[in-house]
Amino acid sequence: MEPIVLASASPQRRAILEQLGVPFVVRPAAVEEVEEGDPATVALTNARAKAAAVEGEHVLGVDTVVALDGRIYGKPADERDAAATLRALAGATHTVWSGIHLSGVGETAVATAVTFRPLDNSWVEWYVASDEWRDRAGGYAIQGRGAALVTRIEGDYTNVVGLPVAAFTELLRTLGFPGKSR
Amino acid sequence: MEPIVLASASPQRRAILEQLGVPFVVRPAAVEEVEEGDPATVALTNARAKAAAVEGEHVLGVDTVVALDGRIYGKPADERDAAATLRALAGATHTVWSGIHLSGVGETAVATAVTFRPLDNSWVEWYVASDEWRDRAGGYAIQGRGAALVTRIEGDYTNVVGLPVAAFTELLRTLGFPGKSR
Repeated sequence: MEPIVLASASPQRRAILEQLGVPFVVRPAAVEEVEEGDPATVALTNARAKAAAVEGEHVLGVDTVVALDGRIYGKPADERDAAATLRALAGATHTVWSGIHLSGVGETAVATAVTFRPLDNSWVEWYVASDEWRDRAGGYAIQGRGAALVTRIEGDYTNVVGLPVAAFTELLRTLGFPGKSR
Repeated sequence: MEPIVLASASPQRRAILEQLGVPFVVRPAAVEEVEEGDPATVALTNARAKAAAVEGEHVLGVDTVVALDGRIYGKPADERDAAATLRALAGATHTVWSGIHLSGVGETAVATAVTFRPLDNSWVEWYVASDEWRDRAGGYAIQGRGAALVTRIEGDYTNVVGLPVAAFTELLRTLGFPGKSR
């Protein structure tokens, strides 16, 4: 299989491709992202824009969005904003949407429901102090300390990390992944 | 918080405790494990036995079991067994049970439903060739290439990795985790 082009600087997405053994090169896309609207549409629009912004035969653009009650929660601006985001998600079930676009192959949007435990001050202070919320949509990292905030999910876990593996590998089959049967 | 004692040699369980920032020391327990019966009871019985086998004030024993249609799938013996296990789980939803016992605190059993995609020969051969099935209950590692076999889960993802974080941190609260609110 020829390497795909990952149009993202996200270390989590890189780690997932490495975990799968999918050959890839990284060419981060700099695009103006849409931040409001229907979450699935926002994620797909941004994924498409990222894939289009970078050279390559099969470019993978991905965008992940955290949505609750019609609102999209982006990356917190500061500690106060991080705490407010955690309190908004606490004790509730939000939806993580990823849009993935693999140029020359296809695209899809994937939803995973994520339920947070109720969070008292000690949880919020513990998590904000970890600094893990920085640069994360929705202000948490499920693959880090954020795991302690989550009581359950419904759907694909890797979608919450930043690249929905089941849907992505389904697209990859067109390119011959995981290989022909002997 | 005083370090807890992890009565397990599992690198995945160590990694989760590190990820959470929970202080711990490792003292693997060598016990005769129960391998048949009701999955929740098996997991709790083994967890209890591991916690009891090791010295320490607060010893964490954990056991994880993969169950489908009343059968428990252990660690595959060889490649042929690994392939047979994958084919048994393919296109179906199995349950992963973890029992956790924290001595001096309490115990609980946690279930997560895991749905596998249908697997044709190319998937089975790809996964068996990865060797990732070795030493894994149910013959797969969801935190590795096994992620590509799973289309969705319902419940706590970390439970499938080997230590259910939400239930575990709930037990830990008794010991003062994540710390007092300022």
